[in-house]
Amino acid sequence: MADRPNCDLKSLSPLQLFERVTEQGEKVRALKAGKAPKDEIDAAVRMLLSLKLSYKTTTGQDYQAGLPPKDLVLINNGTTKEEDEDFVDPWTVQTSNAKGVDYDKLIVRFGSSKIDTDLINRIERAIGQKPHRFLRRGIFFSHRDMDQILDAYENKKSFYLYTGRGPSSQALHVGHLIPFIFTKWLQEVFDVPLVIQLTDDEKYLWKDLTTEKAYEYAKENAKDIIACGFDVNKTFIFSDLDYLGTSTGFYKNVVKVQKHVTFNQVKGIFGFTDSDCIGKISFPAIQAAPSFSSSFPQIFNGKENIQCLIPCAIDQDPYFRMTRDVAPRIGQPKPALLHSVFFPALQGAQTKMSASDPNSSIFLTDTPKQIKTKINKHAFSGGRDTIEEHRKYGGNCDVDVSFMYLTFFLEDDDRLEQLKQAYTSGELLTGELKKVLIETLQPLIAAHQERRKQVTDEMVKQFMTPRKLAFEF
Amino acid sequence: MADRPNCDLKSLSPLQLFERVTEQGEKVRALKAGKAPKDEIDAAVRMLLSLKLSYKTTTGQDYQAGLPPKDLVLINNGTTKEEDEDFVDPWTVQTSNAKGVDYDKLIVRFGSSKIDTDLINRIERAIGQKPHRFLRRGIFFSHRDMDQILDAYENKKSFYLYTGRGPSSQALHVGHLIPFIFTKWLQEVFDVPLVIQLTDDEKYLWKDLTTEKAYEYAKENAKDIIACGFDVNKTFIFSDLDYLGTSTGFYKNVVKVQKHVTFNQVKGIFGFTDSDCIGKISFPAIQAAPSFSSSFPQIFNGKENIQCLIPCAIDQDPYFRMTRDVAPRIGQPKPALLHSVFFPALQGAQTKMSASDPNSSIFLTDTPKQIKTKINKHAFSGGRDTIEEHRKYGGNCDVDVSFMYLTFFLEDDDRLEQLKQAYTSGELLTGELKKVLIETLQPLIAAHQERRKQVTDEMVKQFMTPRKLAFEF
Repeated sequence: MADRPNCDLKSLSPLQLFERVTEQGEKVRALKAGKAPKDEIDAAVRMLLSLKLSYKTTTGQDYQAGLPPKDLVLINNGTTKEEDEDFVDPWTVQTSNAKGVDYDKLIVRFGSSKIDTDLINRIERAIGQKPHRFLRRGIFFSHRDMDQILDAYENKKSFYLYTGRGPSSQALHVGHLIPFIFTKWLQEVFDVPLVIQLTDDEKYLWKDLTTEKAYEYAKENAKDIIACGFDVNKTFIFSDLDYLGTSTGFYKNVVKVQKHVTFNQVKGIFGFTDSDCIGKISFPAIQAAPSFSSSFPQIFNGKENIQCLIPCAIDQDPYFRMTRDVAPRIGQPKPALLHSVFFPALQGAQTKMSASDPNSSIFLTDTPKQIKTKINKHAFSGGRDTIEEHRKYGGNCDVDVSFMYLTFFLEDDDRLEQLKQAYTSGELLTGELKKVLIETLQPLIAAHQERRKQVTDEMVKQFMTPRKLAFEF
Repeated sequence: MADRPNCDLKSLSPLQLFERVTEQGEKVRALKAGKAPKDEIDAAVRMLLSLKLSYKTTTGQDYQAGLPPKDLVLINNGTTKEEDEDFVDPWTVQTSNAKGVDYDKLIVRFGSSKIDTDLINRIERAIGQKPHRFLRRGIFFSHRDMDQILDAYENKKSFYLYTGRGPSSQALHVGHLIPFIFTKWLQEVFDVPLVIQLTDDEKYLWKDLTTEKAYEYAKENAKDIIACGFDVNKTFIFSDLDYLGTSTGFYKNVVKVQKHVTFNQVKGIFGFTDSDCIGKISFPAIQAAPSFSSSFPQIFNGKENIQCLIPCAIDQDPYFRMTRDVAPRIGQPKPALLHSVFFPALQGAQTKMSASDPNSSIFLTDTPKQIKTKINKHAFSGGRDTIEEHRKYGGNCDVDVSFMYLTFFLEDDDRLEQLKQAYTSGELLTGELKKVLIETLQPLIAAHQERRKQVTDEMVKQFMTPRKLAFEF
């Protein structure tokens, strides 16, 4: 890889070409700045022009500095990020806007597609059921290739679901449930296998944890996931630290991905530096591997071509942009994606909830009293300062965290709309809106706790045992 | 890892500290060159002095630019390599000297210890047998912590052997046998378990090979290794692509190593660049993992503290310097090492043999006639141009490849000494010396071919099946 002859250009991915053009541009500028000999500058310029031509031939677009090709946009790269833009990567979500991240902008920046009414209607027709409230309300708002999944489904071609969680602590908050609630619904309406990755290796690499502790968290978190009601005959939950050593297919896919991604690429995508450990640098391949059915030979009978659909929060997209870039080069189908918005912290939508700050979230272990206190005390309100003003001007649902939470958890569309109108008009007071949220969450969480109590170690073991599921491949 | 507070210095390894000092030195120079404000320069200088102090406290030595701490010397780093020095890393061995690499210099540069007469005598006492000709003749010439292995052995504490091979082709040459011949002897005299790693994943990452092809080469190479006469009850041979997916301990050790090695470190040790794939960058952890007994729970009953001894060619040392740097930080014993010289190409000792040039080596598949032709035609001679001159001035054994090969393969010390004297005095002609070599190698290789024919696929499967060996732990 050290000297990169021109004849190799055809085998490069659009992103690799983009990087080559960028590098060469920098080289030309450096030569000019350093007043290098004319023939040297000329040669570098000729190379630049030839690279730009290759880029255009491959992508069908002119090279534009700072605008990488669509399917693999650099998001951590300072040169592409504007001053007032939201910052989103798998470890950090930051916005200065009380309404939260600007998701329409994110779609453009990430190069994904909006989940529009047409797509929602098409899903409804395909499954013959009302779409999940997360779809109806734009909570899952963006996708990649969902139409391909539906094409295949309509032609009786199966696919599988893949989602996951980084087990960094024992306690999950309600926001952590969003992908699992939605994935469970997808699994039920499409009747497909599901794999759930618990990245205990990632947490070991990033946090001050032993491998044993990370694995323990993985098993504890599995209990909360199982309590969402997944079917053991259709679902495989695995810890990386455990499963990599028991799968004949997983490591092979990891190595294949690792061969096709350079340090330059993960630096651009994830912002890694030379001081990062090689575990972090190579980890993206571990999160990529479950996108390929051959990582689960026991489920898919060794078949390589089963398409994968990944429901996840949008901050995980960088991993899968990378995966989609690599997939065709290792002869695998690109995974499709459904992206959700972030679940806001009680204090407001500027940040993602944090498992380490107990007051930023409602935890799945909270008592009815704690739920009530937290919402009353910490949930950021879009209401006015005095009752008089509120009655006169009304509240602002766009920034009100209690209302946001209700859009996630209140199933009844009409009721939600009534609440919105009443709050906006000033008829409904902040305390009253909070009461509705408290009364919605308390029974939901109590029921979750009840189901979790039923989850035995034996059940966890069953879910986490590599085995055939109730599907033929 | 991004901002590295000073209070962390105590947890840094000597090499990490060395790098911090070097970086800080560069920063100071850059600030001065850029005419930065005085207080900024002063702060950077204070930091530099504090880092140098930490370095001295940790290593007991003053920081010297370009001279990293002893146990983890940077060998690929241009700043430490002198113009006329030999170049040695796991992929390249280069020297301008016809006698081959200067191994005494290499010992100093790598910071290992010479295998001296005292150590050889101690080995002889410990095992109650004559040491192998590779020890008697300085073919295994360097070590790390071999005295600890002997201490332990004399106190009836067991250890295990680990060696390996990168299966880049089907055909092995005689040079490839050196570590295996020696390892077999070590296993017999010490009666300890042996693990042999076939790095098919490495070959997939570095070469234009599919994973299937690399695995096929691994199994083919295993046949040649088994044909050296290893005991199936005491030996486990494994392919990375295969074993990683069947071992509950291996991946955990890989991740542990990966957490404790930065990209900066592998860049310094192995010369990786930003354009290298993340597979190469993280691969050193895969070669490190077999140094820890917990990577083989089936053999060592899950025990973590069994010491490892690695016989290998000196070019593999960078992997194990890294491993030894990491070991104490993940609570594991450092592996001990025995280093061999390189086996010279037929054309001379300037380079290592290459499996891709059929005339550079005697292959294990060569016929008696091919062996004869190759030696007569290609073996670089230290003899004189004419018979008259040869009789008068004598030949030069130091550069004569036939003589070098005889030091590897002729068991009889007296005979070898006689040949040396006769050749040096001019009594023995080049053709006669070559004849001795031909007559030594032909039966050795014929016998190897005979044994290899007996190696069935079933036997390969047995050797490569993870299982308990004939030892209790």
